[in-house]
Amino acid sequence: MHKGFTLWFTGLSGSGKTTISTLIHERLRQAGAKVEMLDGDIVRENLSQGLGFSKQDRDTNIRRIGFVCELLSRHGVIAIVAAISPYREAREDVRRRVENFVEVYVECPLEVTASRDVKGLYKKALAGEIPHFTGVTDPYEPPLAPEVIIHSDQENPRQSADRVWATLKELGLVSF
Amino acid sequence: MHKGFTLWFTGLSGSGKTTISTLIHERLRQAGAKVEMLDGDIVRENLSQGLGFSKQDRDTNIRRIGFVCELLSRHGVIAIVAAISPYREAREDVRRRVENFVEVYVECPLEVTASRDVKGLYKKALAGEIPHFTGVTDPYEPPLAPEVIIHSDQENPRQSADRVWATLKELGLVSF
Repeated sequence: MHKGFTLWFTGLSGSGKTTISTLIHERLRQAGAKVEMLDGDIVRENLSQGLGFSKQDRDTNIRRIGFVCELLSRHGVIAIVAAISPYREAREDVRRRVENFVEVYVECPLEVTASRDVKGLYKKALAGEIPHFTGVTDPYEPPLAPEVIIHSDQENPRQSADRVWATLKELGLVSF
Repeated sequence: MHKGFTLWFTGLSGSGKTTISTLIHERLRQAGAKVEMLDGDIVRENLSQGLGFSKQDRDTNIRRIGFVCELLSRHGVIAIVAAISPYREAREDVRRRVENFVEVYVECPLEVTASRDVKGLYKKALAGEIPHFTGVTDPYEPPLAPEVIIHSDQENPRQSADRVWATLKELGLVSF
């Protein structure tokens, strides 16, 4: 019914990673798949307490998530990750470790994420109150060859999830 | 053929945890089981770099391992852990999180582990060169009701592994 793989959502805070990945997670669960959602916040709580948001700490956080994805994926479990993961090299490290790695770049212009500002973080970041804020005071390095690009400012989450799902089928990773 | 479960070896450094757990790991692999060995050193490298050996840091380390065990076990994978894990409460926390938790207490008198001193650590610890060394300058809290007790000074690793295997069968966790 499905292979083990890692579905990795990357993009700015507020771009829609969690919303879209949650839809995919729910769809996979309803289909009876073995699937785990490793949301950025869950991971910070369980694996990376004490780490901050410097490049080094972010890279360490991503490496830990990658380790868990590697373990799950190679035993046939689907790992879904939604994490800003702004550094290309760290994501590529995970890609090298995981057998089936599907990178979803949730692209959304900074003006849009900043104007949505769901968590009220951009306002603070633009006021200089949050150091290391991706897109404002820290870089975001977009993937060069992601398996899927989502333009979350141009389609709704359901449409985005459909496109991710279609890619998983094309890649032969799910066959529901 | 097998359920998902967590097989947790606890005991002093040099008690034989890694040796016995490696035998079980190999046996499960040969039987075709989905199994992951989370040895203390592997975990320190991949999940807990930067943590030390204070009670707080050890507890954090164990909690992270427990998180990974929980994910693996609930998807039918066997997680084997060999870690000193000296604090009872931290081990009980993992027990509460994991559906099938099998605790193996590898009991070995300090005189024996210190005289074996495979890694040369006891000599240093007894000379006061290693702070927080379990059994010497740090406590070890034995399990009160482990599923298996191994007296590794009184039997060889093969015999110990046989007893662990028998317990897994009795508990209905493997049926090879």
